[in-house]
Amino acid sequence: MIIVVKPGASKDQVDEILNKLSGCDLKAHISEGAERLIIGVIGDKSRLAPGSLDVLTAVEKIVPIMESYKLASRAFRPEGSSFDINGVEIGGKMITMMAGPCAVESEEQVEEVAQTIVKLGAKFLRGGAYKPRTSPYAFQGLEMEGLKILRRVADRHGLLVISEITSECDIDQATEYLDMIQIGARNAQNFRLLSAVGKSGKPVMLKRGIAETIDEWLGSAEYIMSEGNYKIALCERGIRTFETATRSTLDISAIPVLKSKTHLPVIVDPSHAAGKAAYVRPLSLAAIAAGADGLIIEVHPNPTCALSDAAQQLKPDVFISLCNEIKAMCEVIGRTYPE
Amino acid sequence: MIIVVKPGASKDQVDEILNKLSGCDLKAHISEGAERLIIGVIGDKSRLAPGSLDVLTAVEKIVPIMESYKLASRAFRPEGSSFDINGVEIGGKMITMMAGPCAVESEEQVEEVAQTIVKLGAKFLRGGAYKPRTSPYAFQGLEMEGLKILRRVADRHGLLVISEITSECDIDQATEYLDMIQIGARNAQNFRLLSAVGKSGKPVMLKRGIAETIDEWLGSAEYIMSEGNYKIALCERGIRTFETATRSTLDISAIPVLKSKTHLPVIVDPSHAAGKAAYVRPLSLAAIAAGADGLIIEVHPNPTCALSDAAQQLKPDVFISLCNEIKAMCEVIGRTYPE
Amino acid sequence: MIIVVKPGASKDQVDEILNKLSGCDLKAHISEGAERLIIGVIGDKSRLAPGSLDVLTAVEKIVPIMESYKLASRAFRPEGSSFDINGVEIGGKMITMMAGPCAVESEEQVEEVAQTIVKLGAKFLRGGAYKPRTSPYAFQGLEMEGLKILRRVADRHGLLVISEITSECDIDQATEYLDMIQIGARNAQNFRLLSAVGKSGKPVMLKRGIAETIDEWLGSAEYIMSEGNYKIALCERGIRTFETATRSTLDISAIPVLKSKTHLPVIVDPSHAAGKAAYVRPLSLAAIAAGADGLIIEVHPNPTCALSDAAQQLKPDVFISLCNEIKAMCEVIGRTYPE
Amino acid sequence: MIIVVKPGASKDQVDEILNKLSGCDLKAHISEGAERLIIGVIGDKSRLAPGSLDVLTAVEKIVPIMESYKLASRAFRPEGSSFDINGVEIGGKMITMMAGPCAVESEEQVEEVAQTIVKLGAKFLRGGAYKPRTSPYAFQGLEMEGLKILRRVADRHGLLVISEITSECDIDQATEYLDMIQIGARNAQNFRLLSAVGKSGKPVMLKRGIAETIDEWLGSAEYIMSEGNYKIALCERGIRTFETATRSTLDISAIPVLKSKTHLPVIVDPSHAAGKAAYVRPLSLAAIAAGADGLIIEVHPNPTCALSDAAQQLKPDVFISLCNEIKAMCEVIGRTYPE
Repeated sequence: MIIVVKPGASKDQVDEILNKLSGCDLKAHISEGAERLIIGVIGDKSRLAPGSLDVLTAVEKIVPIMESYKLASRAFRPEGSSFDINGVEIGGKMITMMAGPCAVESEEQVEEVAQTIVKLGAKFLRGGAYKPRTSPYAFQGLEMEGLKILRRVADRHGLLVISEITSECDIDQATEYLDMIQIGARNAQNFRLLSAVGKSGKPVMLKRGIAETIDEWLGSAEYIMSEGNYKIALCERGIRTFETATRSTLDISAIPVLKSKTHLPVIVDPSHAAGKAAYVRPLSLAAIAAGADGLIIEVHPNPTCALSDAAQQLKPDVFISLCNEIKAMCEVIGRTYPE
Repeated sequence: MIIVVKPGASKDQVDEILNKLSGCDLKAHISEGAERLIIGVIGDKSRLAPGSLDVLTAVEKIVPIMESYKLASRAFRPEGSSFDINGVEIGGKMITMMAGPCAVESEEQVEEVAQTIVKLGAKFLRGGAYKPRTSPYAFQGLEMEGLKILRRVADRHGLLVISEITSECDIDQATEYLDMIQIGARNAQNFRLLSAVGKSGKPVMLKRGIAETIDEWLGSAEYIMSEGNYKIALCERGIRTFETATRSTLDISAIPVLKSKTHLPVIVDPSHAAGKAAYVRPLSLAAIAAGADGLIIEVHPNPTCALSDAAQQLKPDVFISLCNEIKAMCEVIGRTYPE
Repeated sequence: MIIVVKPGASKDQVDEILNKLSGCDLKAHISEGAERLIIGVIGDKSRLAPGSLDVLTAVEKIVPIMESYKLASRAFRPEGSSFDINGVEIGGKMITMMAGPCAVESEEQVEEVAQTIVKLGAKFLRGGAYKPRTSPYAFQGLEMEGLKILRRVADRHGLLVISEITSECDIDQATEYLDMIQIGARNAQNFRLLSAVGKSGKPVMLKRGIAETIDEWLGSAEYIMSEGNYKIALCERGIRTFETATRSTLDISAIPVLKSKTHLPVIVDPSHAAGKAAYVRPLSLAAIAAGADGLIIEVHPNPTCALSDAAQQLKPDVFISLCNEIKAMCEVIGRTYPE
Repeated sequence: MIIVVKPGASKDQVDEILNKLSGCDLKAHISEGAERLIIGVIGDKSRLAPGSLDVLTAVEKIVPIMESYKLASRAFRPEGSSFDINGVEIGGKMITMMAGPCAVESEEQVEEVAQTIVKLGAKFLRGGAYKPRTSPYAFQGLEMEGLKILRRVADRHGLLVISEITSECDIDQATEYLDMIQIGARNAQNFRLLSAVGKSGKPVMLKRGIAETIDEWLGSAEYIMSEGNYKIALCERGIRTFETATRSTLDISAIPVLKSKTHLPVIVDPSHAAGKAAYVRPLSLAAIAAGADGLIIEVHPNPTCALSDAAQQLKPDVFISLCNEIKAMCEVIGRTYPE
């Protein structure tokens, strides 16, 4: 941490800063520039409350040097990390395909999707059972019954189940049916839920909050990791910007940025970012080209009749042809596509 | 809801739309413009899944006419709503002052603040017991013990207690100590928590999510209201934008916009928006000038030693002089300041 | 400027940085923290091309300490600056009122507005002659003829004229008719126009670009000032955010932030920020409460028939009652309202 | 255009709307929903000033149906458009590669880059001669001398020249040296410059403004096209968001959105979006995967010594290996790479 001192600060005011630092067992390293005095702070900064230096008269600004996350940082595992769920690796050379309907509506619906996707290399069956909806009057999901449907269908096809959990109260029961817990964008900074999910030990896919910076996102991952759970994949799903032509703006640059800042695998959700089926193909291909470790894509046997987000779910035949294109793309980019 | 039909759509494609509508018991009203065919949809649109029309070939775009919230809309109570908590009215002619430290640190600290604010018209003592922090390694609050401290101190001074709850698991116990529950920005779309808070029947102050549109915010209020709990105040606390000179950008326009869209009272939190004590005064005055029904301001006996957000907490003497200015402002604007 | 060195950088890599610095006649001040080596750079940083350090292998990040503007900074004139245009002071204790129609449509229209505003303390008559419009098919303004109308009407009433200039080609002719040049949001970083306006020596009101940070805005002011023209007022007119309930989001915090960063006077334009007449009153009052030095407000004798931005122009009677409220507000806030 | 009428509007108030419409020769089509009266407006809406309906008492909101651009819309040329510059096609099956240094510094520097890129399929030599810089004290470019250098070097290698023009005053002289004019992000809504460029008849690459919506961007293109100049390529170069890990956020979705809204070719500038050389490779590949018609990439013989934006310029050897990857990507995606 670096403290920039206001021009014209008195010796007493500078001493106030130095005393504050030594009171917290921190060492100060003073450097006098042409126009500003600068104090480098050495030691464990967590002893300082946030903002407790800003209030001192002579402080012009505080510049943090280190990130606040440790376990999630690339430096913790410079070679990158990957993990295994029942024989399926996330974060390796092979990309991970997750697919399924936006919301679980019935066993028949999920079964139909599962039959399609299992042949195309998808290892994870997705489907919303607990649906966070902007309006309380919209379909809220089949809840625990939805998870049971996912489990039964997945077991018939040798698939893994990933689904969103929205409350710590559901974790114990839900983890009986899930292989991977999804934390949604709206709960991206629900730290109580993150800690609980960390304690559960279940693999987690952590979506980015709709206005979360990459550093804050890694702070959220750190909440889970600090409970000893390191099986985390990050999921970029678009951020909120001024542009309204798409539901969110897919931050494609987040992929290489994450690769430099963290060792955690990166999945991309083109369906929610776009909000429109027609854009899922180009965004999926772009994500793989930019280095994503996997995709989570919404597929519905009959989007017109879907109970939620019909506009962004692919018909099975569209999904089939997309998977073929992704496969070809993988080869160019030095990845493998799952059989 | 209005459907704009693509130019050149065939009769069959238009019929597909009309059939979809009649299949959901919705009436269609066709209007032929110079360049586009437009279909007005009449009836209960909740029968349609979101996006289920967008996927039809002939649909160019869908234009919603009605908001998705009802109870929170101005039309529900055109005269505006106010409510009473133990004799203190929120949303009336008199503005509401809430003050206290960012985080509860000790009974002495809270006591010292309470003694200051009670003389200045503040009726609510605030203080964070459960602190949502970006890093898991930062001070997380005294939790239930913090709520007990707030209760004891408030009772000694005839103050009401408002504090943030971050998990549905805490509601039962917490409501023993609280007069008003605060829902923070990070949980603004934690719908499970919103429903639970709605069921509790306790008055709620609902902060705006950091990237929540005003319509989404009212959707969050609707979650609480749809459980039968109408004692809700909305709290504008700044939104995330590209500008980094302040921690968030206080959306001052949200005050008049809310006054036109909803009947719910509006409180402003200048401390979190600014992130810097020096800006709290101008933002507080601006909020009252723009029509806010109250303010929630962070005050700490000794900000330099605070355990969280030191930079934005006011010293008691600064708070005293600010209250005097707010009082004078109230008169100009046709409001009264509490004695 | 501070350079944070990557952990594990070799001595040779650090030397590469030091050599680069000494090659530009810059001194290095090395400071060794627990986890990072930090190099303070002392001297004239303009000798370094932007980014020329970032490309060195051992550089983790660069932290600028000083702003890139000098003349516009508060340090240049710590007491604040004000200037005089034909006996009217901008930036003093008295606030400045500017008013007039969005676009000049006819001499009758402008005359009617002028008669209203001159009685209410407005010293500046505004009106768009060159209108930057999103569509080439929208009314583009009366151009030079519009400026002549403004001049004639203003002269009859002892008013000053302010109007937007959109091209350096127009400056010579336009300055014959104008007392103050307005640079609009869309040209906020049209540096060629800024330099030309600087050379003209005419007082300038510089609007903030729709996505311009405060630091960039002051960089734009510096372009004008570096040509020797110090008569500049800054005009906050709303920034682009994700919220669409208002046309732009008025950044009310920009007022106190500017007061701390620059000595230049600050005017607020509530009409363009809001895009809706009903919000102009609360935003005007908030701006004055937050410390603005003046307001520029759109007034039209008959908004329903306006040729541009009808929705945000006030009827004369609404403007009259607003001015009375602003006057009362000025007293509370320690400012004076012009007679 | 659709007018939503406020609930409870009187017959007189509705008549006021209808009279306004008929006074502008517009037909009204009334549709009565369960909760709202809706008026469809048929005819040439340009007869209505923007906002002139919003001010009527009974108007709740106005919903535009048609875009304000015509020539730039996909409907104008549903098959897509391409154009030819001296035998080089933009917008065809073959992608377009543009490369060169951020700023022209000397003939030697440009020559060295040109020798590299000409062997890799690049047909356009880029280089900034007029540099819009945030600070007036930064290197402003070699101006006309820079254009002459570009021309001489390009002619030696059979390359075309593209460079940014920042003022209408320079167009006549500059077009002697240029094959394609670049309009930069800061002048994206400098409508005077757009019109002048339109009149010049020279091919134009129009960059997106940093906070310009896609519809506004197409409005800017319409300014050029309405002067009869249809040789326009759009260039996505990143938008401003809250995320600061990259200089701008590359809006990868803009590619498919533009493909559906307009017939104009789309070029992507990964260098400015990223602001960091390490991210140029993944963003370039993603852009091609998402359907871009070309790339403009910054290459410098020795980025460490560059006079501007050193951090984002590629070394020649990095550019060579990137071109090989782009070539392989083109085959997968059904495009061809230039020889």
